[in-house]
Amino acid sequence: MQSKLAFIGFGNVARALAKLIERKSDGLKSKYGITYSVTGIATGRHGFAVNPNGLDIKEALALVEQGKSISHLSALPVENSLDVIRLSAADVVFENSPVNYETGQPAVDHVRAALNAGAHAITANKGTVVHAYRELTDLAQSKGRKFMFESTVLGGSPMFSTFREAMPLAELKSFKGIINATTNIILSRMEDGESFGDAVMYCQSIGIAETDPSGDVDGWDASIKVAALATVLMDTPTKPQDVDRKGIRDITPAMIMDAKREKKRWKLVASAERDRGRVLARVAPGLVDASSPLYGMMGSSSGLTFRTDVLPDYSITISEREGLKGGPEETAYGLFADFINAVSAT
Amino acid sequence: MQSKLAFIGFGNVARALAKLIERKSDGLKSKYGITYSVTGIATGRHGFAVNPNGLDIKEALALVEQGKSISHLSALPVENSLDVIRLSAADVVFENSPVNYETGQPAVDHVRAALNAGAHAITANKGTVVHAYRELTDLAQSKGRKFMFESTVLGGSPMFSTFREAMPLAELKSFKGIINATTNIILSRMEDGESFGDAVMYCQSIGIAETDPSGDVDGWDASIKVAALATVLMDTPTKPQDVDRKGIRDITPAMIMDAKREKKRWKLVASAERDRGRVLARVAPGLVDASSPLYGMMGSSSGLTFRTDVLPDYSITISEREGLKGGPEETAYGLFADFINAVSAT
Repeated sequence: MQSKLAFIGFGNVARALAKLIERKSDGLKSKYGITYSVTGIATGRHGFAVNPNGLDIKEALALVEQGKSISHLSALPVENSLDVIRLSAADVVFENSPVNYETGQPAVDHVRAALNAGAHAITANKGTVVHAYRELTDLAQSKGRKFMFESTVLGGSPMFSTFREAMPLAELKSFKGIINATTNIILSRMEDGESFGDAVMYCQSIGIAETDPSGDVDGWDASIKVAALATVLMDTPTKPQDVDRKGIRDITPAMIMDAKREKKRWKLVASAERDRGRVLARVAPGLVDASSPLYGMMGSSSGLTFRTDVLPDYSITISEREGLKGGPEETAYGLFADFINAVSAT
Repeated sequence: MQSKLAFIGFGNVARALAKLIERKSDGLKSKYGITYSVTGIATGRHGFAVNPNGLDIKEALALVEQGKSISHLSALPVENSLDVIRLSAADVVFENSPVNYETGQPAVDHVRAALNAGAHAITANKGTVVHAYRELTDLAQSKGRKFMFESTVLGGSPMFSTFREAMPLAELKSFKGIINATTNIILSRMEDGESFGDAVMYCQSIGIAETDPSGDVDGWDASIKVAALATVLMDTPTKPQDVDRKGIRDITPAMIMDAKREKKRWKLVASAERDRGRVLARVAPGLVDASSPLYGMMGSSSGLTFRTDVLPDYSITISEREGLKGGPEETAYGLFADFINAVSAT
């Protein structure tokens, strides 16, 4: 079938997704019978465009990458993202607006509008899961559409879909892992003798830490991801504020060297476990030794260990390697996988 | 819908599966709308029973576990496994006959008969994948049924389904890992100072190594699993004989201690990679250091790292833990997951 696609937000991730869809178009068609056209694009700074008969995606990509507006491509007058969602007649809306951790907006409104317009809503925005998972999932179900968000945790690596499809009826008792790249890079570099401040500056220089690094360093980003995982995989609504949170500011170079002498490592460990009907979620520095799957996760590597009622401990690890370090391309792949799974399932 | 189930082979794994289905029956019904009855059982030494209106599974379990025959439960005269497949009117056949690595029989015949009778065929038998993957998959497709085999590699942990559903259109370039528990336990125990012979005897004493341990020690079991993975995930028919194979007999205690001093470990590494249209598959001892995901896999732990065109290296690790060490319950879970996925998909 022909899927009409709308992109709400057209930054690095969304553009990587558009290119990935183009690159994989033969496989989409031959393996899944999916063809597509792009009927709507909403950008942050380069205007809005809608054409229910299809926009020229290559031209739109080129314009935005040259810093130009796409507004003249539009066949209809559109002034904002909600116009694009409403007028694009899209079957699939990719929501990639900037994250607001406190309210989840405007992403939650975009997803709601997309589902109400009869489209699948696919997002990499953690705010939607933390603030409105139950509402949006129920709304999707009532419309016979899908609300999907694989890319919100561990880039585009399968995490939610593993439990949705690969491990049906497994009861998740607890999980534990490393899910914030910035703090893991900082701790890895401190083990090599770099100071905390220099390591933070390094992360800022490669574009993975903000000017104010406290969202990562104080464990907020990890807390949001733990909350999202607990909300979905343990079916227990969990807010970032519910997470018992401690960052890495108190980890001194001396502590790291002491650990190294004992062949151990400090890691910012995120975890959650069921405890008498509740979920206890936590982000805190922890000492791990070589027997832990976390020990070998250095730099931007990350991963989670899941304890269920049906299997031995099951760990997923994403290892950095040259040229592929969890950038926009990987996040785009999670959106792409959601796209295929949403369209195939309905 | 009501699914009629037949068990061909009723050993430890099949009985664990029957109990797991009972234990999860509420979830099967509420989440997937699946109810079931057992209409056929074929055992190796305790007879055969068929009743299209449903057998008493609890009674059958009790009889077999007391070493008694189930034949008197049968509503129809049945003398062998093919009779059970034919007369049980099953929607799902669980094939768990003993593995024959050289021919894949009688499992291949059982799967073929099940598919021809209009049932889904689900097996933990590696022989079927290595000897007849393409034929059985094509047959299943022509019948609108599924041929599934999640439990053939890494117990019941999701491996095939990860690529089938969680990572759609990812192109697998190579994989590498530890997929034979016996050799990994032997190498782990040798690192603690035990001799090769004593470590083999330990594995025999806990029931995971055969009287003749050469299938594990010489790398045959790992080769069969590599061949199965390459056949399915790389869509390249691969036989165990095609695998460049070297076992662990030449790994001396001195080599293990030398490695330990350098903070390295010998592992029996199974791998495959695409190379100009072919697949090069290999099983051989390899030295790994702490940066490798394989380093931390001790004892009966196992796992694989996958390199694709869309994500950073993606590793799955199964860690032994007290009370859950990859026994029949875990293999049973893979069959159970296949059951849900087969019935839900059709």
